Amino acid sequence: MITVMRYGHRVGRDKRTTTHVGLVARAFGADEFILVGNDKSPIKTIKSVTKNWGGSFKCSLIKNWRKYLKDFKGLKLHLTMYGEPYKSVISKIKTNQNILIFVGAEKVPIDVYKTCDFNIAVISQPHSEIGALAVFLENLKIDTSKKFKDAKLKIEPEREGKSVIKL
Amino acid sequence: MITVMRYGHRVGRDKRTTTHVGLVARAFGADEFILVGNDKSPIKTIKSVTKNWGGSFKCSLIKNWRKYLKDFKGLKLHLTMYGEPYKSVISKIKTNQNILIFVGAEKVPIDVYKTCDFNIAVISQPHSEIGALAVFLENLKIDTSKKFKDAKLKIEPEREGKSVIKL
Repeated sequence: MITVMRYGHRVGRDKRTTTHVGLVARAFGADEFILVGNDKSPIKTIKSVTKNWGGSFKCSLIKNWRKYLKDFKGLKLHLTMYGEPYKSVISKIKTNQNILIFVGAEKVPIDVYKTCDFNIAVISQPHSEIGALAVFLENLKIDTSKKFKDAKLKIEPEREGKSVIKL
Repeated sequence: MITVMRYGHRVGRDKRTTTHVGLVARAFGADEFILVGNDKSPIKTIKSVTKNWGGSFKCSLIKNWRKYLKDFKGLKLHLTMYGEPYKSVISKIKTNQNILIFVGAEKVPIDVYKTCDFNIAVISQPHSEIGALAVFLENLKIDTSKKFKDAKLKIEPEREGKSVIKL
């Protein structure tokens, strides 16, 4: 079970980036997306994608995120460019059954660095939390072959052009 | 030499996602970012990051992108969820010295699928062009160790907290 928690979402400004975080979480095999705050807009988009493209990806809003993070039973990871290189820790992480990945938008409070078991950098340069999440999940090598059940739409990979099958 | 071309940027709406595309391109080892259109705002941000964090990453705007893409001497790749799985083609791509990666925001014109040598999917599910670009570049295994010369700032990876060195 992999949960992605998105912190620091600013209504309007972060609408698209937060939606990208949620869609990456779903597509690369996470099970749940929790958005800190009360903006239903990204949740609505991600739920609509799940409805069409399958799977049982969960999406919700949370207010008391500190309590949730503190009480979470499992491994807590924080993706940050300031952290340890992911390649040096990923083998320790893969064995865990229950993982929460904390993904910031604006500045992350310093106590998060201490609450989390690992602060992990995909790269030690300014980049993108969306890119970092995608690379990190891809490297967890989650089996997504059975993740997208009951889809209405499915892509048939093509060398040229687009092929979407209606199921 | 790796060039990332961003197509379909909508002023305002895509400001942050386009900036993420550019920052991912730089951080994961591309050499150049070309933005289709006339919005200087993402270019300004990416140039400012390069000034502080080093390297000779090039950024520019382009209008006649179709001519540029057509005349490009090298391998032309289009990242799209409709394409072939990246794992099946990446070994053929790695050997090329000059690569252009086309990254769309809004709907990409169908002729791009034909002009490009490869249409590549990082995953065949709706996700994020930012995430796709990050995973793809990471898997090209570009040596970035000498990419960020003349930096004013550098991160010292930390297990907990933030450490930025002023050089």
